[in-house]
Amino acid sequence: MKAGILTIGDEILIGQTIDTNSAVIGKNLNKIGVDINQILSVADQKKEIIEGLNYISRGSDLVLITGGLGPTKDDITKHAFIDFFEDKLIFAEAQYDRVKQLFNKRNINITTAHEEQFFLPSKAEFFLNEMGTAPGMLFRKDGKLFFSMPGVPYEMEHLLTQRLIPLLRKEGIGNEIYHKTLLTVGCGETALAEKIEDILRGKLEDFSIAYLPSLGTVKIRLTAKGVNLSSTISRMNDVFSQLEERLSDFTYGEDEESLPGHIGNSLIEKKLTLGIAESCTGGHIGHLITSVPGSSAYFEGGVISYSYAQKRELLNVKSDTLINTGAVSEETVIEMQKGAINLFKTDLSLSVSGIAGPGGGTPDKPVGTIWMACGNKDEYRTKKVIAGKDRLKNMEYAGVQALNLLRQFINEVY
Amino acid sequence: MKAGILTIGDEILIGQTIDTNSAVIGKNLNKIGVDINQILSVADQKKEIIEGLNYISRGSDLVLITGGLGPTKDDITKHAFIDFFEDKLIFAEAQYDRVKQLFNKRNINITTAHEEQFFLPSKAEFFLNEMGTAPGMLFRKDGKLFFSMPGVPYEMEHLLTQRLIPLLRKEGIGNEIYHKTLLTVGCGETALAEKIEDILRGKLEDFSIAYLPSLGTVKIRLTAKGVNLSSTISRMNDVFSQLEERLSDFTYGEDEESLPGHIGNSLIEKKLTLGIAESCTGGHIGHLITSVPGSSAYFEGGVISYSYAQKRELLNVKSDTLINTGAVSEETVIEMQKGAINLFKTDLSLSVSGIAGPGGGTPDKPVGTIWMACGNKDEYRTKKVIAGKDRLKNMEYAGVQALNLLRQFINEVY
Repeated sequence: MKAGILTIGDEILIGQTIDTNSAVIGKNLNKIGVDINQILSVADQKKEIIEGLNYISRGSDLVLITGGLGPTKDDITKHAFIDFFEDKLIFAEAQYDRVKQLFNKRNINITTAHEEQFFLPSKAEFFLNEMGTAPGMLFRKDGKLFFSMPGVPYEMEHLLTQRLIPLLRKEGIGNEIYHKTLLTVGCGETALAEKIEDILRGKLEDFSIAYLPSLGTVKIRLTAKGVNLSSTISRMNDVFSQLEERLSDFTYGEDEESLPGHIGNSLIEKKLTLGIAESCTGGHIGHLITSVPGSSAYFEGGVISYSYAQKRELLNVKSDTLINTGAVSEETVIEMQKGAINLFKTDLSLSVSGIAGPGGGTPDKPVGTIWMACGNKDEYRTKKVIAGKDRLKNMEYAGVQALNLLRQFINEVY
Repeated sequence: MKAGILTIGDEILIGQTIDTNSAVIGKNLNKIGVDINQILSVADQKKEIIEGLNYISRGSDLVLITGGLGPTKDDITKHAFIDFFEDKLIFAEAQYDRVKQLFNKRNINITTAHEEQFFLPSKAEFFLNEMGTAPGMLFRKDGKLFFSMPGVPYEMEHLLTQRLIPLLRKEGIGNEIYHKTLLTVGCGETALAEKIEDILRGKLEDFSIAYLPSLGTVKIRLTAKGVNLSSTISRMNDVFSQLEERLSDFTYGEDEESLPGHIGNSLIEKKLTLGIAESCTGGHIGHLITSVPGSSAYFEGGVISYSYAQKRELLNVKSDTLINTGAVSEETVIEMQKGAINLFKTDLSLSVSGIAGPGGGTPDKPVGTIWMACGNKDEYRTKKVIAGKDRLKNMEYAGVQALNLLRQFINEVY
């Protein structure tokens, strides 16, 4: 089955919004063996939308439509659907009632403008959107499927993964396909590829490998499909185990696991608690750790010591240390790490201090210089990384590197 | 003039790469009044590329092509060009010499694989790429322009802004266009549209309006173009001022400003300092605040008091309060707010405590219940919001709402 995406919205064409939805769709459909062969973005204009629907449906059996919904745009897209599917609008009572109840619960008045939103194409099958008010809509025409979703990314992802993909599976769409992904941190793509070259040699005839790098991490994904799938999978799993063993210094999990989630599981398993002391990351590491449901079981808390004064007062970093070595130094992160242990009375603590930029760099310590320490009350490890010039990227990179230091410390010491 | 974009590359279709190039092109061409009316992404396959060129050039006078170049893909795209432009490949001596010199300077050996890259379409006009080896290529066909650029974002942007746009201007292409965007927070799209309906009535004939919502915020963008632009702009600016006044409770800036950036500017202007006490947001609010370069001028620090113990010990929240009203309560966030003022000795503090989910909800306090307080040493405001069920979205939503409470407190009190 071939699929195509139609994204509707002036905001994408004028570059105000980056189309992240298409990548999310591509990734998710790819997992069930449905290939996206085209992505088309058009303006919020009826004629353009209809032409787009025509064009994409010519080459695809499944058309995913995002955007063009919401109170102020609705009308254009809906009327394009009406024309294209030779349909009419009717008041969708059940959809309206659901949203009315939702609004009542939240003490929001439902207005005439809201009511208008529920005049919807009569041929649409509706799919519950638990993240918002606009439902997913499925149309069938000439044996092809059309699925319309709002453009708000989390609403779109919800409808895609919770509604459309289960439906496709139920209708027997998608080849059998099998992925297994090894998650690594702290080693670059080229270096990883070199380390495992001999394991892969001659093995990539019936399954394939892809390296998916992002900031500080690389996912290695093996994919099997086609006939004799079960024997291919068993050969692939064998290779996967070899990769896992070879790369054990760098792996933190499989498939959908996250680095903070992996660390959380280790902390629970080993009955350890954690406190953190952040400076340049400004709360980002706390956010990563607490993004894991249930993290309160091991995460006691954190301090964002953004000033010299707070480093001294909350974490007991010595004035001398700050004066002599600066806030971005090995000495300071060691004292921050110890200070956090004393403050939070946790088994472990993690500290980070650096120059996120764009200002504040010196020839000795350029923008992107980041020190970090991880330890318990008796011992610690430190690490220095040099990131780039982009403030946000530096914070993200420091977060991944600091979590990796924590992962390594737990592995080595406990 | 209408323009369209064709992006070539499997990596976009399978969701491995997010297409950021199209947004950069859209923004830059929009500034000179060239509208992008379509963006199409196709696979690295000759047939798909040719079909894509046909489709995009049907509705556009200018076609921007990105990607599909580089040592491993080159051949496919070049042969698609040859077919589409009825051309042939010739060895592009001058291009080759330039890269050879470059490689010599860097002590890199030029190989046969490199040489192959310089068999290029004979009808192309070449444009120097100072950021890489593949030149920009311009083709003319049936009065339309086709400009091909590599997909590497900084090479693409370089060729676009330094080569193509100057060329378009020289050829007298592009109208003038003018955008002005009002940034709002704390009011939904529908409610905003109703509040300003009377101001806009009859005014949208010579300029247009677009609502661009995301989690908790809505951007309202006005756009003027066409003849008599300066008088349209002056009418549009007049309406913009009226919108700004009408929506003053909700606006935090114009154009590219961010909410944390806006708050930062207010704090600097009013010489105020800030400390924060987070619970359910786990550091996310600190991260938002410190995402602004120079935030150390007003941000003293934060506490992530993730446990009862830390709420008591760092922030002096009373045990009685925690026992009687729970950690997610108005009383607790008020005490956290006061505790943060005492701890950080700042002018202002902001506190948040809630149930991010997915666990931890009760009938009284369902998942998504979030309390927040903002104040100085003498007074405070509190707010309760009910977000949804998604942990990360709840954290993000709480962040936007808390920053909005801070914005309102500053506006009302200082």
